[in-house]
Amino acid sequence: MDAKELLLTRRSVRSFTDKRVDRDVLKEALRVSTYAPTGMGRQSPLLVCVSDDEAIETLKKLNASILGMDIDPYYGAKTIILAFGKAERVTCVEDATSLLVYLGLALYGEGIGSCWVHRMKQVFELPEGKKLIESWDLPEGYVAVGSLAVGYPDGEHPTVAERKKDYIIYK
Amino acid sequence: MDAKELLLTRRSVRSFTDKRVDRDVLKEALRVSTYAPTGMGRQSPLLVCVSDDEAIETLKKLNASILGMDIDPYYGAKTIILAFGKAERVTCVEDATSLLVYLGLALYGEGIGSCWVHRMKQVFELPEGKKLIESWDLPEGYVAVGSLAVGYPDGEHPTVAERKKDYIIYK
Repeated sequence: MDAKELLLTRRSVRSFTDKRVDRDVLKEALRVSTYAPTGMGRQSPLLVCVSDDEAIETLKKLNASILGMDIDPYYGAKTIILAFGKAERVTCVEDATSLLVYLGLALYGEGIGSCWVHRMKQVFELPEGKKLIESWDLPEGYVAVGSLAVGYPDGEHPTVAERKKDYIIYK
Repeated sequence: MDAKELLLTRRSVRSFTDKRVDRDVLKEALRVSTYAPTGMGRQSPLLVCVSDDEAIETLKKLNASILGMDIDPYYGAKTIILAFGKAERVTCVEDATSLLVYLGLALYGEGIGSCWVHRMKQVFELPEGKKLIESWDLPEGYVAVGSLAVGYPDGEHPTVAERKKDYIIYK
């Protein structure tokens, strides 16, 4: 796909088929995402790719509980990718966000849909969330910044909303 | 340019020629950046494209003063693009970051270099920074999240640093 087309046509996908994303395609998109810019080029974030059904169920349930709604905030996705930032970095949130933005684009380039899901910091502050993350035995010093629901899009590609006026101001 | 090539080869540029970036190319890259994902599709951020020499001098000076170093943190760039997030949004930082990531890619696709420069919130908390932003008469409720130094690259395209091991963990 052409670069500009990629940027202009990627949309958040909120409906996925039951088919799990091809492992090699997923791995390559994750690799590409690590080329995203990070503060001082430190490559400080960490990505966790979750395919384990039980862990996905827990993430869905806890995220929904923070939202206070009985829904699946991951839209039935069978893969969830979490981005963690290094807490000690002043660009902790920006760095992890940067990787998730790249990842959304890299996945879309391969025909895979994704949607941002927030509230991750709160998820891992809940007792069950703490238990889950402890079971993963991640390196120390990281904080969850965001996540992507990932899967093959079910249905038409979402249309783009008109961009707001005055998004850009020239000085 | 091919989409994957764009993602893999964009690098931060820290040396710019004296030539100011073509206005139409800049405007188009800024337009493309507004297609970046934002929390709940709210399009909450705001971009300010600064070409005014005096304002650029002030931004450079104030940013350097926070850094505590007598350098130009914008590497001689003649265009600075600031991203503001809407303070009331929980995704304030993520949304503004998302646009800057898209913008860096859109600019690179057109042969224009850019580099993230942080410390923007602090810049506008300084008396001279407050004065500058008040003179711009921006809409209420926005907070500066980050900025890009923008210009035509001077010299070779920067090489990519090897990606760290264990950037991605599979669960």
